Formats: sequence, structure tokens, C-alpha cells
Amino acid sequence: MAKKYATREQDYSKWYNEVVSRADLAENSEVRGCMVIKPYGYAIWEKMKDVLDKKFKETGHSNAYFPIFIPKSLFEAEEKNAEGFAKECAVVTHHRLIDDPNNKGKLIVDPNAKLEEELIVRPTSEAIIWSTYKKWIQSYRDLPILINQWANVVRWEMRTRIFLRTAEFLWQEGHTAHATKAEALAEAAQMNNVYAEFAENYMAMPVIQGLKSESERFAGADETYCIEAMMQDGKALQAGTSHFLGQNFAKAFDVKFATKEGKQEHVWATSWGVSTRLMGALIMTHSDDEGLVLPPLLAPIQVAAIPIYKTEEELEKISLLMKELGEKLDSKGISFKFDADDNRRPGWKFAEYEAKGVPIRLAMGPRDLQNGKVEVARRDNKTKEIVDFENVEVYIENLLNDIQTNLLQRAKDFRENRTQKVDSYDEFKVKIESEGGFLLAHWDGTNETEEKIKNETKATIRCIPLDREDEEGICMVTGRKSKGRVIFAKAY
Amino acid sequence: MAKKYATREQDYSKWYNEVVSRADLAENSEVRGCMVIKPYGYAIWEKMKDVLDKKFKETGHSNAYFPIFIPKSLFEAEEKNAEGFAKECAVVTHHRLIDDPNNKGKLIVDPNAKLEEELIVRPTSEAIIWSTYKKWIQSYRDLPILINQWANVVRWEMRTRIFLRTAEFLWQEGHTAHATKAEALAEAAQMNNVYAEFAENYMAMPVIQGLKSESERFAGADETYCIEAMMQDGKALQAGTSHFLGQNFAKAFDVKFATKEGKQEHVWATSWGVSTRLMGALIMTHSDDEGLVLPPLLAPIQVAAIPIYKTEEELEKISLLMKELGEKLDSKGISFKFDADDNRRPGWKFAEYEAKGVPIRLAMGPRDLQNGKVEVARRDNKTKEIVDFENVEVYIENLLNDIQTNLLQRAKDFRENRTQKVDSYDEFKVKIESEGGFLLAHWDGTNETEEKIKNETKATIRCIPLDREDEEGICMVTGRKSKGRVIFAKAY
Repeated sequence: MAKKYATREQDYSKWYNEVVSRADLAENSEVRGCMVIKPYGYAIWEKMKDVLDKKFKETGHSNAYFPIFIPKSLFEAEEKNAEGFAKECAVVTHHRLIDDPNNKGKLIVDPNAKLEEELIVRPTSEAIIWSTYKKWIQSYRDLPILINQWANVVRWEMRTRIFLRTAEFLWQEGHTAHATKAEALAEAAQMNNVYAEFAENYMAMPVIQGLKSESERFAGADETYCIEAMMQDGKALQAGTSHFLGQNFAKAFDVKFATKEGKQEHVWATSWGVSTRLMGALIMTHSDDEGLVLPPLLAPIQVAAIPIYKTEEELEKISLLMKELGEKLDSKGISFKFDADDNRRPGWKFAEYEAKGVPIRLAMGPRDLQNGKVEVARRDNKTKEIVDFENVEVYIENLLNDIQTNLLQRAKDFRENRTQKVDSYDEFKVKIESEGGFLLAHWDGTNETEEKIKNETKATIRCIPLDREDEEGICMVTGRKSKGRVIFAKAY
Repeated sequence: MAKKYATREQDYSKWYNEVVSRADLAENSEVRGCMVIKPYGYAIWEKMKDVLDKKFKETGHSNAYFPIFIPKSLFEAEEKNAEGFAKECAVVTHHRLIDDPNNKGKLIVDPNAKLEEELIVRPTSEAIIWSTYKKWIQSYRDLPILINQWANVVRWEMRTRIFLRTAEFLWQEGHTAHATKAEALAEAAQMNNVYAEFAENYMAMPVIQGLKSESERFAGADETYCIEAMMQDGKALQAGTSHFLGQNFAKAFDVKFATKEGKQEHVWATSWGVSTRLMGALIMTHSDDEGLVLPPLLAPIQVAAIPIYKTEEELEKISLLMKELGEKLDSKGISFKFDADDNRRPGWKFAEYEAKGVPIRLAMGPRDLQNGKVEVARRDNKTKEIVDFENVEVYIENLLNDIQTNLLQRAKDFRENRTQKVDSYDEFKVKIESEGGFLLAHWDGTNETEEKIKNETKATIRCIPLDREDEEGICMVTGRKSKGRVIFAKAY
């Protein structure tokens, strides 16, 4: 009867794709590596956007919009940044199509419409933004500039997966300019913290805040803060990054300001971003073998109610009660859907809302009607209860809070269970292969050792945790001194 | 002293550019024809977006996101649409840059990274969306599909002007699919009406709803609804369009559905959009020689207050009162800014908020403080009054409503004064040149006549008004029969 879906145990990757498709979140498009974000998936992204946008504004940032294209000469100005993105750039070379003389009804690129200078579709906007900031910044009075942009970006990735790695994705990118190094560093740390709070308090996804090792830094950054989460297959997912860019872009674009004392100095910069990749993180943190599980604070539908009836009269009575409940929930800001579609049977609807991760599902049948009861099912732990319909809105409100809390706790417990200290490289090699998860180990701080570990085990340094304990130790590979453990994991 | 700015009378085009720049709305970027939308300009656009998005959702639409790229083979599928946009397409041909072997630190396009099929940066998304809908639509149960997308699009225009015509712009595009022609027609009309209501009730910009003549229709549409506004130079501006696409895209992409009776039929379509062009319309409808004028409902700052003081003690007292007022206004949902920046003199601030179109400006000095008064200045008609500070929040709330109403009325009066009926082509030619505005004239309904008028006078048919009177007449050019007047104007 019902189609059999892959479980996490059987085939994690297939399971992920099926959760995405069963919940109707997104699909691959006819454009290589680009996705279509479907209405239900986009509604979740909109909720994320709204919360983040509010947090950015509360921390003093304004939104603006910069061109999608970057002329090649600007793109190449900051060399490390250019080098980092050059191999995955979509390049616009022409600005016109004409009729194909050999093939009626078809078009070809007009060879006479070649651009004098090629345009790069932005993979990130530092170059175009800093070439603009140059015009905006003369003196300390023009600083800080605190701007964010919601935009699409393109990185021509060879291996793509919906939400996790796509050729085009949606994101926000903050780009700030400061008079001092200290201020820019504080901004980068602050925004990473905003991301961490969002991840924990809204996505119910615990994250570790840390700094990237040099080799894992953003191309063009002097320091990269990040938040790292653990997925249910024990792999790490980088969920957001915030970069201290030093004076690199200011130097590349010659952006100086007059200090109060009248000296000319280069401006300090940060940039920070999260993307639709967060959707992948959200899915993989909570979902189970029945489909998507959503934290209530990001669920487009928080409560779905399904009537079970034989007669029209029963349906009418249930509908009336549900209409009243809907109004009560609405006044509490709780989104509610009463699904009386009679083309679908209750069992189909149960499975549908389960696959879509709706946090609470109500069902009311003739007997409930008689007894003044309603069945309340939680999506997170799949328990059900029969409760009094009277004041059920209060029960629901509390339950949504419980579910939000429970999901975060469950994810924290999961992560804790799969985080361990490892002191020998042999043990490390065995554990990263057999158990995965986060391995806390000592590392000598060199690129060479990091590279060796990566090549031999596929594990990378996810971050140097901000709150790590000082602990004298020796590098598990070279035996050299280390001041504390870093987090290794295989990663998305 | 103060820089002299162009007046509307002296140089309308220069005046427009100066209003944009003085209000810090946007600027040209280093990318040909692309603009940077600055924070204050973007804040206005965000307000527009929020209102429109709510209206789209109230009328049953959901947001989604489709790829920015359209493979050439999909792009050319609907021939009229392709023909209409082919000459202004940005085309991606390569996906990688490499180091320039002859020029260290520079990059060149990698000739080995040529795409098998060129990708068009979307000028509009019908092609990519209908190739996707094909997968979503099998039966009447899958209809209607009511989707909107907020996105950037690119049209390689040769002559660009900030907000009015730019190579890249931001917009929304609704794309709906229906089982019947009647339903699709009703949808197109409904969304045009949503635009008209938004224009009048929020932008305070009166518009005429109408249908485009065949030659002015969207490429690929069977019928185009539009809203047309009049700018202060008497030129028309098309502010939004809503297209009935018939079965053109369904046929191009072979999208059929099974009817209830089990027959296979092509799906009916609409698409509709407004863009950052609305910013240009807003600016040109209300602004005056002192700068931007904003309708309160779209003003990022509705009330700005400026303290005038000699002593710190005076400033403290004023600040305290303004803080209280700010809280009262906030509770009414009125945005308020108290500007106590002591780097700037009051006169500078007055000019600044005037240029930025802030609807109400308050000023409070020592004497006002003593008398319990505050000066309230309206931006729209530049009148000032001294009013009691007590309960001034109520006064302000009413005044904002008055200003919103007044701006709409003023724009309506302006349009009425510059709209006239014309019956002879000679008179038409004189008037379109000397007076501009909307000329209502009889036209025989043919492309040829329309083309002749356009070539000889630069006036185009803006629309056939939905509410035009039936009036038998004769075409002013050919003397052939006509059933009613259409609106001619020179247009942006």
C-alpha cells in the first residue's frame, strides 16, 4: 500500500532527499545544480528571514541592495578572495540573442554583442560592495557602515544537493565598515552570536561557536567565526560564518578615512552570512523516518486539525468548534489549519501533516464531539492524548513551548552522546570512521598536520571553540605542543 | 551658501536625479545600468514589499523561488516571449575563471569551462516556471497554482535611469495556472486591481486601470492589464501590469491537465508584476523642488523631531519630553526619530529631513519648552503650526492621515487638469507637444494607425481604460469608426 521510504539507518542520503520531497519543500530544477524552492519550503525560509532580519535591525543594521554582477576587474582586486571563488564563477559574456539563421525559431548568442568586460555573477559581494564603500567613506564621521543584503548568489559547485550545496542559493550577507580593528572584531563576534542564538532559540539546533583554522577561513578573511552543528548521521554542518576581513578589502579598493586627528587610515571590515543551507540543517537536525519535524517557532502551520465524520451534521458541528478554536489560536499568534477537504481520507491527512512536520495535529470524531474531547498528537515524540476541548488553546500553547524545548534538548543530548575526546591518532582514525561525530583532539596548529589528517581520514577541523578549556596537550599526529583541543569531524 | 538644485521647471530630468541623490535613495553602480539601492531607498521598497506581500497572501498566493538562470532551449520555447526579450539578455557562457598566464594577479575566462548550453539570466520567469509547472500539473485537482516570487531580473537596456529603467531591477512576479479561461482572466483582472488599490491607498498615486493595445502587450500575452499614472511633467508611467497569457505557455511547454470529465486540456495562465520602478513613480508623483515628498504610509521615518537649545539643561528637558512622545507614537505604530546629533545644526537637519520627504517635522526650542508648545511642520504643503505639546501624539496621528489624503487628492487634481479630450489629429499634435498629459482620443483599433501616431508624435496608447464611456466616434487619424476613447501620452 503505502510507499516504503528509506530510513536514516538504511540510507541517510536517500532519506534526506525523500524528506525534502515528501514535505514538498523543494526540488531540482532543469538548470544544473539550481533548485526550485516550493511554497511550503519557502514559507519556512520566510520565517527564518523574518526573525533574522529583525535581529539584524535590532543590532543597528539596515538593508540595501547591490548589483548581482561584478565586473572582472573588480572581482580580481582582492586576490585571495578572487582565487577562492574563481573556479566556480558563472560568467556573463554577451548581452543579446539573435535568430539562428540555420534553425528557424531557435536563438543563438549574438557574436556582435560581446561585453567589453566580462561580468561575474556574484558568488559573494565583497568586491562590488567595497568598490561602492570607497565612494561613501571619507572621514570617521561616515563610519561605521552597517549594511545587510538579502540576495541570491551563484557558486558553480560540481556536486550539488538541495539546500546543502546548490549552484544558486538565497542568503543574507552583512558587510560592515569600521574605524578600528577592535570594533570590527567585536562586530564579527556579535553577528556570530546572533546566528548562534537564532540557531538555538528558533531552529532548536545547538551549535558550537568557534574560529576556523587558517585553511578553512573565508577567502580574504583574517579570521572566520562560525557556528557548527551536528547532523543525525554524526557529520558536522557549518551553519553560518562571520568574517573579520581586516583591512584586506580596504587595501584592495583603496578605501581610507580621515581619523579625528586628521590621519588617513584604511578601513576595517567584516562580512557575515547565512543561507538556505540552514534549511538543510533544520531538516537533518530534527526529522525522523516519518518525515520532516519542525520546531514550532519556524513551522508555517503549527497546528493542523482533521475532522473524522460520517454525517454532514457531524462535520458541521466539528467545523463550528474548530472555527472558534482557530480564532482563539489566531489571537495567540498560533497558526492553525482546519483541513476539511473531503477528497482526502483522515489517514492520508495524518500521514501528510506528519511528513510536513506540523508540530501538533488534532483529530476530532463523533465520540470526541459527544464527550467534549479532542485528540492531540505531538509530531516530535509521536505521543497522543485525549484532552478536554474546553480551553484546549491553552494546552496547545504550552505544548508548543514544550515541543520547542524538547527538540533543542534532544538535539543537545544527541550531540553530547556523539562528542568525545580522543588522544591517539590511531584511535582517531578508527572512531572517525566507525562512529563519526565530533572528536575533540589536540592539534599542533599547523596547516601541514591539518592537511595530513584531512587526506588520511576526510575529517576536517570544524572549529577552535570559543569556550574551549585551556588544556596543555600534545598533537595526536606530531606530538608537538597544543594549548587546547579543537573539533574534528567529517562535514557537509 | 546652499547648493542650488534644479527645479522641475528648469530641468525635470536633472531634478529627478537630484531628488534621488539628495534623499540618499540610490546611485549608479560601477556595473553598466545597474543601481545600488541605498538603505533609505531600500527601506521604502521594503515597506512597499510588506504591504504588497500581505495583499498577495490575502488573495490566496504563496511565495516560492525559481532559478535565476534559464537554459536557452527553454527560453526560446515560447516564441513571442523569446522574441520580445532576446535583444536584451545577459547570457552566461562559462563557469570558471583561471589565472591569466600573461598577466600575474589577473584572471581570464577559462576557455575549457564553456557551458554546453548557454544560460539566460531571467528577464522574466515564465519559461523556467512553466517548464516546472509541467511536472506539478496532472489533473484539475492540482489547479489553480497561485504563486508569487520576489526576485531580481536583468534586462540589458541601452538607456537606463535609476529606478525607472535599469539593467537589473527588483520585482515580484506572480505566475498562476488555471483550469479555465474565465478563471485566469478573473485572476489577471483581480491582481491589476490589487495594484491599483496599492497605488492609490499607499502610494497616494491615482492610476487608470486599462488594457494595453496589442502592440503594447507583454510578449507572450493575449491580454495585458495595466495601471497607468501621470508624472509631474505630464508623462505617463506604467506602474504595474497583469497578463492573461491564455494557453501560450501551456502549449509551448506542453502542460495539460485531466479535467473532471477525464479530458486532456491545456492549462490557462497569468503573470503579473511590479518592480522597483514604483520607486521612480512614487518620487515623481509627489516630490517638489525641495526634494522628496513621501506619503506617510510608505515613509520609513514618519516624524522627525529636532531640538533647538543653547544649554545642556535645555537639551535634557527636550530629550525627556521627546522620549515620552516617542513611546506614545510607537504604541500607535508611528515611526519617530529624535535627532539630537550635536555635530549638525538645526538648519542643516531641517533641510535634510525635507530632502528625505519625512512627512512631519517637529522642532522644540527653549520658548516652546516654557510654553508647553511644539512646532509642527508638514512636508506636503510646507505649512507650520505651533501646537500644545500635550496630546500632540493625537494631533500627529490625525495629521498623518490628512497628509496621506491630501497627497492623493493633489495628485488626482493634477492629473485631472492635464487630461483632456481631443478630436482632431492636428490639435493632438500641438497639444501632445505643448501640454503633454493624457489625451483622450478616438482610434480605429489598428496597429498601423497606432504606429503612425507613435512615429509622428512619440505618443503611445497607454491603455484602453476599463471604465471608459461607450462613445461612438471616429478615429482622429483615419476617420474610421471607434467605440470609445483611448488614452494617449508620452511615456517613461
